[in-house]
Amino acid sequence: MADGGALMRNEEGIGAVLGVLKQQFGERFQTGHAIRQQHGHTTTWIENQMPDGVVFAQSTQEVSEIVKVCATHKVPIIAYGTGTSLEGHVNAPAGGISVDVSQMDKVLEVNAGDLDCRVQPGVTREALNTYLRDQGLFFPIDPGANASLGGMTATRASGTNAVRYGTMKDNVLNVEAVMADGSIIRTARRAKKTSAGYDLTRLMVGSEGTLGIITEVTLRLQGIPEAISAARCSFPSVEAAAKTVMAVIQYGLPVARIELLDAMMVGAVNAYSKLDLPKTPMLLLEFHGSNAGVIEQAETFGALAEEEGGTGYTATATLEERNKLWQARHDAYWAMLALRPGCNAIASDVCVPISRLAEALRASETKAAEMGLMAPTVSHAGDGNFHATVLVDMDDPDEIARGRSFISWLNDMAIGMDGTCTGEHGIGQGKKSYLVRELGPETLAVMAAIKKALDPDNIMNPGKILI
Amino acid sequence: MADGGALMRNEEGIGAVLGVLKQQFGERFQTGHAIRQQHGHTTTWIENQMPDGVVFAQSTQEVSEIVKVCATHKVPIIAYGTGTSLEGHVNAPAGGISVDVSQMDKVLEVNAGDLDCRVQPGVTREALNTYLRDQGLFFPIDPGANASLGGMTATRASGTNAVRYGTMKDNVLNVEAVMADGSIIRTARRAKKTSAGYDLTRLMVGSEGTLGIITEVTLRLQGIPEAISAARCSFPSVEAAAKTVMAVIQYGLPVARIELLDAMMVGAVNAYSKLDLPKTPMLLLEFHGSNAGVIEQAETFGALAEEEGGTGYTATATLEERNKLWQARHDAYWAMLALRPGCNAIASDVCVPISRLAEALRASETKAAEMGLMAPTVSHAGDGNFHATVLVDMDDPDEIARGRSFISWLNDMAIGMDGTCTGEHGIGQGKKSYLVRELGPETLAVMAAIKKALDPDNIMNPGKILI
Repeated sequence: MADGGALMRNEEGIGAVLGVLKQQFGERFQTGHAIRQQHGHTTTWIENQMPDGVVFAQSTQEVSEIVKVCATHKVPIIAYGTGTSLEGHVNAPAGGISVDVSQMDKVLEVNAGDLDCRVQPGVTREALNTYLRDQGLFFPIDPGANASLGGMTATRASGTNAVRYGTMKDNVLNVEAVMADGSIIRTARRAKKTSAGYDLTRLMVGSEGTLGIITEVTLRLQGIPEAISAARCSFPSVEAAAKTVMAVIQYGLPVARIELLDAMMVGAVNAYSKLDLPKTPMLLLEFHGSNAGVIEQAETFGALAEEEGGTGYTATATLEERNKLWQARHDAYWAMLALRPGCNAIASDVCVPISRLAEALRASETKAAEMGLMAPTVSHAGDGNFHATVLVDMDDPDEIARGRSFISWLNDMAIGMDGTCTGEHGIGQGKKSYLVRELGPETLAVMAAIKKALDPDNIMNPGKILI
Repeated sequence: MADGGALMRNEEGIGAVLGVLKQQFGERFQTGHAIRQQHGHTTTWIENQMPDGVVFAQSTQEVSEIVKVCATHKVPIIAYGTGTSLEGHVNAPAGGISVDVSQMDKVLEVNAGDLDCRVQPGVTREALNTYLRDQGLFFPIDPGANASLGGMTATRASGTNAVRYGTMKDNVLNVEAVMADGSIIRTARRAKKTSAGYDLTRLMVGSEGTLGIITEVTLRLQGIPEAISAARCSFPSVEAAAKTVMAVIQYGLPVARIELLDAMMVGAVNAYSKLDLPKTPMLLLEFHGSNAGVIEQAETFGALAEEEGGTGYTATATLEERNKLWQARHDAYWAMLALRPGCNAIASDVCVPISRLAEALRASETKAAEMGLMAPTVSHAGDGNFHATVLVDMDDPDEIARGRSFISWLNDMAIGMDGTCTGEHGIGQGKKSYLVRELGPETLAVMAAIKKALDPDNIMNPGKILI
């Protein structure tokens, strides 16, 4: 699935850059095979394409210097946070330099009065939340992995809390970035809203390192709610579960999380996390609010679920129980992989208008079964986003072909429902062919014109999103 | 304040375009002085710069044809909705064609199940809400004027509900636009979230007609809450009122509206709307939620207000009373103007981190008094956004100079507090000089590169935001 055939390696430039960076960064510049392979790493099936060297940057100024060296010699630069992206985002199809920002891991400022903070790009979401806890604050965006906040910004990540708190697009106030010429920009100031010129903040969010390297982000925070309660409810079918979600959204119930697991996924979670959940489709919920508010929300949900045949509606009693359940949800990816040891995962990430979710989930389940594929599914159902993840034996070319075919069918179905091939993972290398089907050549021409204007030599993470 | 000195009129091109459009659009193309002057209209003090002709478009295809004609002859094109923008956005500093989209006023589709709708750009916010009411839905963004949704998208408008529901940036799912070459793009599909490539939706939102003409928008809707209650509370000072707002935000109280009026503004509103509110700084609130929820919110607010010396906390009992109070708030602009008949308003629109709001409001009030200026102030306080509007006698050059000087001081103060010169009005012509102070030349260079890439001949609303 990785490509870049049209991208040529600039051997001479790469050679020159390797020399300069070695001299400039010493031990912080590495060219060993293992470390290069790790930095081309992807958690999915997309083949590894190593960079030629990895530099561990420690400041914005250093990133700017690295970019200037690469710009001079027209050599690709790929930003690297934790390497947990799913669409080959950190691959180096034409070689070049991986800029590892994991050592830029400082929380620079927390403005509790304004519910915001300023962090370096290598801070992970878990590290930030640990840092914030004593101040009664939290950052809600939670992709499956303990990703870096720079990477989450670059891929427009979201997760289980997005139904209530939005995605990275809604929670980044300002981006500091190094552009392709080495210049350093800030996209906004710290005001909660602004109409000051083009929304470069949102342009950088989701740009996947193709327009610039994110060196700092200012994030919106939330106060830890007075009360948090979790609940789960089982359903006779994915449609019944999805219809309940639709009712919840239409009702305007402000659920913080509403996740749907299909029966196969519940089985995987049971095995991996040593739980004993009923092996039917399940909704896993969390309510945030005042003490009275969460009780009211839970009651309203119960009534809506009952109408769709929900059973075994259980509110978790203790913090420990709640954490265990949500940890199991967060480990769903690993639980899936454990269903079929040695397999690889082909991730999918479609998102459809919520009125089509029930139909889409049913069709996906049916199609996978017809094709003889295992595709356990978990859904950020409140957003209409779901991941049917195909487990494939990479030694079985026929199965791989069927896996690809299923994903292609799934993406086309979502687009046909006026949805998207990617709700939160991004395009990277893996979904480039779907982007044009989704938005059309005119829209892609606009994206390409922006890319060309800001990165005329195509050195910023080439081969991702567009070319 | 209007400028465009660097922009040259292309007389030959304009002559050619006038001929073509007359032939193509007949009576729907107008060149009379009055209609041209109306289409250069601005509600503030910025001088009128008329277009050479006004064409009333009725479809996306027609807008595309008009743009192609103008592109061929390199003639400026300025989109026009209701002409209620405040920073000279519809002025034609180098002449050209005003494309009036007010006849593109159809609600094309309402997807109640998905809480979204698709509208033409000339639909006004009030017309949309009237259309939606029977379905139990509403669109929350409410700038002061009954603006068109295309114009609201183009200026990244917000209003009193933004503290709860966000701004246009948060409520537009997809933009259809005609670009500078006449091509028609869609920026996204109808999924609630997406990571599919560059966020062109957010790039078009707030682009003020400088990148393309918005011909359709898909909007997120809200269910009309089970319960809505309004309240007001008076305070001994603007600081006390602002500190209460800060406490509300930090507490996480989900107020739908929390507006601050200073004493002068309360006086203006009393006179204009025949009310009898205490002439001290006041907060005007609205709570949305369940029946129990709004009672709980109102009680929590009461406790927070009391700590800051709030008095006369009154929850409005009837729908009629609530509407009267909020209509008065919406009429604040006209109430201000009526304070000094014959005056013009110099609008301001700073937005600061909420921890600085009390200080900023106090400094603004003090400075205006020192400079001998009348500057009644209303604030979307939950967002840290406020409008100190200077009332000036346009026949008094000294007063005009002081007015400009005050606005310049105010914008610089906001930027110095890590805020913005514009929370919701946009840059237009009036705030161009502040944009560079706010974001720096490197950031403006990126904006200029995007503008140049998408509109190489600078025909899309030239002279706004950048050049």
